[in-house]
Amino acid sequence: MSEVYAARRARLRDRCHSSGSATALVTRPANVRYLAGAAPKGAVLLLGRGEDILVCGAPPSGEIGEGRPDEAVRVHVLPSPGGDPAVAAADLATALGAESLAVEEHHLTVGRHRAIRSVAPRLRLADLGGAVEQLRVIKDEEEISCLRIGAEIADQALGELLESILVGRTERHLALELERRLVDHGADGPAFTTSVAAGPNSGRPGHIPTDRRVEEGDFLSVCLGATYRGYRCEIGRTFVIGTSPADWQIELYDLVFAAQRAGREALAPGAAYRAVDRAARQVLDSSGYGEGLPVLMGHGVGLEIDEDPQLAPAAMGKLDACVPVTVEPGVHLPGRGGVRIDDTLVVRPEADGGPELLTITTKELLAL
Amino acid sequence: MSEVYAARRARLRDRCHSSGSATALVTRPANVRYLAGAAPKGAVLLLGRGEDILVCGAPPSGEIGEGRPDEAVRVHVLPSPGGDPAVAAADLATALGAESLAVEEHHLTVGRHRAIRSVAPRLRLADLGGAVEQLRVIKDEEEISCLRIGAEIADQALGELLESILVGRTERHLALELERRLVDHGADGPAFTTSVAAGPNSGRPGHIPTDRRVEEGDFLSVCLGATYRGYRCEIGRTFVIGTSPADWQIELYDLVFAAQRAGREALAPGAAYRAVDRAARQVLDSSGYGEGLPVLMGHGVGLEIDEDPQLAPAAMGKLDACVPVTVEPGVHLPGRGGVRIDDTLVVRPEADGGPELLTITTKELLAL
Repeated sequence: MSEVYAARRARLRDRCHSSGSATALVTRPANVRYLAGAAPKGAVLLLGRGEDILVCGAPPSGEIGEGRPDEAVRVHVLPSPGGDPAVAAADLATALGAESLAVEEHHLTVGRHRAIRSVAPRLRLADLGGAVEQLRVIKDEEEISCLRIGAEIADQALGELLESILVGRTERHLALELERRLVDHGADGPAFTTSVAAGPNSGRPGHIPTDRRVEEGDFLSVCLGATYRGYRCEIGRTFVIGTSPADWQIELYDLVFAAQRAGREALAPGAAYRAVDRAARQVLDSSGYGEGLPVLMGHGVGLEIDEDPQLAPAAMGKLDACVPVTVEPGVHLPGRGGVRIDDTLVVRPEADGGPELLTITTKELLAL
Repeated sequence: MSEVYAARRARLRDRCHSSGSATALVTRPANVRYLAGAAPKGAVLLLGRGEDILVCGAPPSGEIGEGRPDEAVRVHVLPSPGGDPAVAAADLATALGAESLAVEEHHLTVGRHRAIRSVAPRLRLADLGGAVEQLRVIKDEEEISCLRIGAEIADQALGELLESILVGRTERHLALELERRLVDHGADGPAFTTSVAAGPNSGRPGHIPTDRRVEEGDFLSVCLGATYRGYRCEIGRTFVIGTSPADWQIELYDLVFAAQRAGREALAPGAAYRAVDRAARQVLDSSGYGEGLPVLMGHGVGLEIDEDPQLAPAAMGKLDACVPVTVEPGVHLPGRGGVRIDDTLVVRPEADGGPELLTITTKELLAL
């Protein structure tokens, strides 16, 4: 793995050089992990001209969840506790002769930026921007393999839940049971707060589980994901409780299913982000559900659950091969409930069989 | 409750006035919730000369976990999705005639700060500093009552776990079971990632549960907390597995217990933060465990699990009545394990009976 991390750092170094800053300070935890193999709490990565240094407030714990630092990176632990590793890294950069330092202005607070300026007044501070996030968009096969395993785990957890009795149980209990099953099957943990939404709550994006119990006739929407070796995937399904779905439920389900399929089918290298969004959105729009739709129809996943690209109406850019994204349209009717269907897929060229579906739980409308 | 929030905002307004900024922008979620009663995701609070406005990216969900906005606060939802509520709030401040705006420089990123400057170039930006965090240190009885209920819930969850069979189960499973029990007993959710540490892992602060199974002869340390109406408490205990603890286990336990008691007994209005730290720390220090001790012996709790004050060697300041803090010394011996004992207490004057212990699970060394 060490060559992988070294290659990522080399790519970032190239970008820094071309923008005039030979030295960079990476503070966003997922970016630190991407480049250094590990992100102990509070650690920052100083990308120097020669050496790369992981500056930590305390010794790395070596726990699975935090990753292992790449051996080619020097680990520097602050001698006294309580200091800010970013400030210490700026001090180190000056000592190593750096004249300018590119920082992540979208992550660093004004207060920390000021503290860096005051310990290293001669260092010219520049903006690294989203350079690391951009590198992270296209995944290598190792990363995709972690996502694939995470998706398998989520599918298993969901499948087992569907075999149990659901009526009478609360959203919160079902969510906790799903999270337990994720861990049972080998996840580091849930990728995000598991959402279980019954009855009038169903179909609400990001619904936080409540004490609402599952009842006959409910829509039940579930959204969960596993973290595996740091990589986070996502699956969402909607079911109907009881033997005979109402007509409005079948119609709404078919509509969201059609929108989600249109979104999936639009995934291809070269497709504009907004075109994928539009493909799914216009299905809902043309049936009169244009108001109150989610801001985006999907997003990238990886070391974070919500990363670039955004599949949204105003997003600029085009998909590449090996970009994992979600496609997750939904409709929520206030007071009645709704439907969300959410998959994680990897963009692949037509010649390789088109988009690779990672979350394979059926999308038929199951009556449970 | 509305008067409570209005009074908090009035206190903050007084501070702002005295530092020359009539208008303030609060972005840190716990601070927003403290002042406005709710912190929908991404929402910020604009504290104006006349009106206070909660600026949200989407309509508040009304879910328990996010709180309910105080009725005296105007809720302003951004008309189009995807915008930054902080930037919109700065725009609103200008429209309302503000000349200067105090922002939370320790929370706001450099990028957002720049975006605010660019939409509102005439607005003089000042630093609000930790003004809201300082207001939050002393709790009212309503807040303490939420913490007390949270502590009861954590005690119940822990008590039930102790009645079950532990040998052979993994740290991860025990942690998940504890979290399920917290929710069963009415918590909004866990206050932080539940830590269960067995054998050589025991006594490590913030240990993330692994697949290590509990074995005969282990120390088992557990640290958990409940969130109740947004308020977070913490309890930590260490047990020994099997009928006869080894001599080193009894000695180490007694030592940490003595340190923790010394810390608890040092809690009083007017006591220096560092004196409480020293009271606990010197017990461990004088027995030769000075190296590798945690950075702090305790900290404030409230809407965040780790808030002011810090009970640490270099901390400046003195305790007041009605400040809830943890006292949580521990010793970890690499390769062998260790002991942590952690309580949440509220500082009370001697005349009111001294510190109020919220987490009442026994601190005897239980052999399970």
